[in-house]
Amino acid sequence: MSQFSASVQEAIDKIREDVARLHGELTRYELVVWTGGNVSGRIPGEDLFVIKPSGVAYDDLAADNMILCTLDGEVVPGTPGSDRSPSSDTAAHAYVYRNMDNVGGVVHTHSTYATAWAARGQEIPCHITGMADEFGGPIPVGPFAIIGDDSIGRGIVATLDGHRSRAVLMQNHGVFTIGKDAKDAVKAAVMCEDVARTTHIALQGGPLIDIPQDKIDALFDRYQNVYGQPGTAAGEGDSK
Amino acid sequence: MSQFSASVQEAIDKIREDVARLHGELTRYELVVWTGGNVSGRIPGEDLFVIKPSGVAYDDLAADNMILCTLDGEVVPGTPGSDRSPSSDTAAHAYVYRNMDNVGGVVHTHSTYATAWAARGQEIPCHITGMADEFGGPIPVGPFAIIGDDSIGRGIVATLDGHRSRAVLMQNHGVFTIGKDAKDAVKAAVMCEDVARTTHIALQGGPLIDIPQDKIDALFDRYQNVYGQPGTAAGEGDSK
Amino acid sequence: MSQFSASVQEAIDKIREDVARLHGELTRYELVVWTGGNVSGRIPGEDLFVIKPSGVAYDDLAADNMILCTLDGEVVPGTPGSDRSPSSDTAAHAYVYRNMDNVGGVVHTHSTYATAWAARGQEIPCHITGMADEFGGPIPVGPFAIIGDDSIGRGIVATLDGHRSRAVLMQNHGVFTIGKDAKDAVKAAVMCEDVARTTHIALQGGPLIDIPQDKIDALFDRYQNVYGQPGTAAGEGDSK
Amino acid sequence: MSQFSASVQEAIDKIREDVARLHGELTRYELVVWTGGNVSGRIPGEDLFVIKPSGVAYDDLAADNMILCTLDGEVVPGTPGSDRSPSSDTAAHAYVYRNMDNVGGVVHTHSTYATAWAARGQEIPCHITGMADEFGGPIPVGPFAIIGDDSIGRGIVATLDGHRSRAVLMQNHGVFTIGKDAKDAVKAAVMCEDVARTTHIALQGGPLIDIPQDKIDALFDRYQNVYGQPGTAAGEGDSK
Repeated sequence: MSQFSASVQEAIDKIREDVARLHGELTRYELVVWTGGNVSGRIPGEDLFVIKPSGVAYDDLAADNMILCTLDGEVVPGTPGSDRSPSSDTAAHAYVYRNMDNVGGVVHTHSTYATAWAARGQEIPCHITGMADEFGGPIPVGPFAIIGDDSIGRGIVATLDGHRSRAVLMQNHGVFTIGKDAKDAVKAAVMCEDVARTTHIALQGGPLIDIPQDKIDALFDRYQNVYGQPGTAAGEGDSK
Repeated sequence: MSQFSASVQEAIDKIREDVARLHGELTRYELVVWTGGNVSGRIPGEDLFVIKPSGVAYDDLAADNMILCTLDGEVVPGTPGSDRSPSSDTAAHAYVYRNMDNVGGVVHTHSTYATAWAARGQEIPCHITGMADEFGGPIPVGPFAIIGDDSIGRGIVATLDGHRSRAVLMQNHGVFTIGKDAKDAVKAAVMCEDVARTTHIALQGGPLIDIPQDKIDALFDRYQNVYGQPGTAAGEGDSK
Repeated sequence: MSQFSASVQEAIDKIREDVARLHGELTRYELVVWTGGNVSGRIPGEDLFVIKPSGVAYDDLAADNMILCTLDGEVVPGTPGSDRSPSSDTAAHAYVYRNMDNVGGVVHTHSTYATAWAARGQEIPCHITGMADEFGGPIPVGPFAIIGDDSIGRGIVATLDGHRSRAVLMQNHGVFTIGKDAKDAVKAAVMCEDVARTTHIALQGGPLIDIPQDKIDALFDRYQNVYGQPGTAAGEGDSK
Repeated sequence: MSQFSASVQEAIDKIREDVARLHGELTRYELVVWTGGNVSGRIPGEDLFVIKPSGVAYDDLAADNMILCTLDGEVVPGTPGSDRSPSSDTAAHAYVYRNMDNVGGVVHTHSTYATAWAARGQEIPCHITGMADEFGGPIPVGPFAIIGDDSIGRGIVATLDGHRSRAVLMQNHGVFTIGKDAKDAVKAAVMCEDVARTTHIALQGGPLIDIPQDKIDALFDRYQNVYGQPGTAAGEGDSK
């Protein structure tokens, strides 16, 4: 018998499905190689989230081997997948959930172009209207931090809290993105690599034209509030 | 019962199928990520066109969820898909159909290399014979314009009306292409990215050799008038 | 009843199958977009070859819609596919077969990196041992020539006749490759793009180390004569 | 009847399956074109290894056509696949197994970005934390050596013996990787291309930020000893 109420168990089951399936977007858009990237999703209203197991191939991911964790990053015993270790990035995901209440999903990748900007410690400037829609300006760089304590999580939160961007380039490392749910964070990871690549390639050919700040503001405002199907979340439009 | 005559309904059904299916070429050639690109097709002889719904994943597109619009960009009530919003770029597509009678299809993407040229505000010069075949010379840049009124549509029409090229690089934004039908516009989008990429990469290695203007003219003229299967449209040959 | 002897008909059927199927390698390795590339294969011992129809999608190619031509590039009436036009590059393929007896297959693409070298009119220098194996040195540039007469065919033959390379970069245009059969020419097209890309990328990072000429000679000689399964053609080894 | 004991035969069968299947990772990550790359795996505790046949398409590889060889690189007569020639790189693989007891798998590719570094004779510097995890520092360059004797094998061993990196860039040639088993060597080949590409692209945009040596050391140490599922090998974590 489940240790959770029926409605919480139903929510957990749904997030397990979502998180397992959404890893397929990381491979579809070639944001990851081997096992090097992960998605997590918060159980709405609970101090719980679901994350990828460590070192399992993307082909082998399924709802049942996703791992349920507390916001301290501890595996919840007696739940499916709890015999495995969660992603080695679990502490960073957990830190974000503990410190950013409005975050429902976190994604981590080392996607090529975004990581290239991160290796130079350069933010991605905003020269494309679709980037203004999605990120509202530049994608910032977070501090150099290595695994082993909360320093990665702290760097993510310190950089993104209050920032328009849902993506941060962790210096010399890779990308973390946040979203209202796991799908939204995955979308941010996909769009981050897309604008990292397009802006990189554009700059190889010469200087870029600036977009006036008021236009960036107008695009971001409209995109967050208008686009997409009625009743769906912001950021679901097809114009970026 | 349909609000259209049998023959018009048949035409609508065919264009719905075509437009839904043709989005698959945008993903096949990696011109789009997430939901960021759209195809539309005019109903021949009618003041109507079919376009992608907003914010729906490419995997989920089907004839039945395409959206039928008037040339003012309004959804036709009581038709399949009319409970959804059409693409947020619908106004731009509609403007093109209202102002360019010979256009039967419109495509919008943010394909990587074409958008890189657009971010620099540079036209793509014509140094490849296949580009001369297809576009008859450079691919031009249109004005900076943002969503919210007819300025994108006006920029497309002002740039492409009377121009050999069926593709325009909208500054800091992406690509719009036109064609005699939706397939032809999709082909232009595919070929635009191909020449944008090849020309970018070529220039990274040094200066390019010019093609004499009279040869560009001869290639364009021949390709529009000779190639392809007897009875098929121009531009269907396999030589570009 | 076939207009050919049973054994010739059998050979034609086999080449039709081979040529139709081998186009799948052009799409697998992303050497082509839309309908922009073609493969042909000579019927051994006959003044005939099989080539792609013009303007037909790669997904729709099958043995039965390949087109049988004479070495003058004329479609053989009354054969499968003869109601269609052959590739608009048929004259170039035919010229090569008429003038190079040892050529059993011809391929044409506008693959990205090879065409980039062609747009600069630069041969691809040989700095990779696998290129020495396969091409025995640089891949040469052929003249600027446009469709409409035998000038493309003449340029290919003038450049490749007596040359180690089975690939030629036609200036401002794209690639033609030759081989002992269609598969061998396809392999040359695949490897040409591979070395064009690797050498381009290598040069973006700084100067390349030369391979001594005697080592290039030794690699080419060994690869042509030793590798692969006993009884199979040269160039089938997996060491390049 | 098998010439091996039941347990050895079982081990051989398993390695045949692994080696055949693992070639699929080379194509999945686009490390190879045509037949240009190979995987081998040692039979644990025996002086035997299994390797790809020469010149066979990746689509056609199966456990039964993999080739069993002695550590001298000789095909074991009377075993499945022994009527074929092994990969032309067999001598290099054999040399590594003879001289590095802890190596259970070897992979060779000409993956694009790694080969680009090899053509310049430049090691790949370590500016990405995932590279510190996986390789513990730079990926070194091995000597120029051509096929025909033990010089390639000697160059691999001389470069990698005692080195943290499991990958070596053979000058003007391509990549060899080693691992505790075939899968581990394949992972090294995948990650090598990934860091070669990311570092190349990063450098195109300007200078990279250094990672302090003690952080590289800490990352490498942790990754080798901590990550992954309990009981699995080092290097299986999803954090790089």
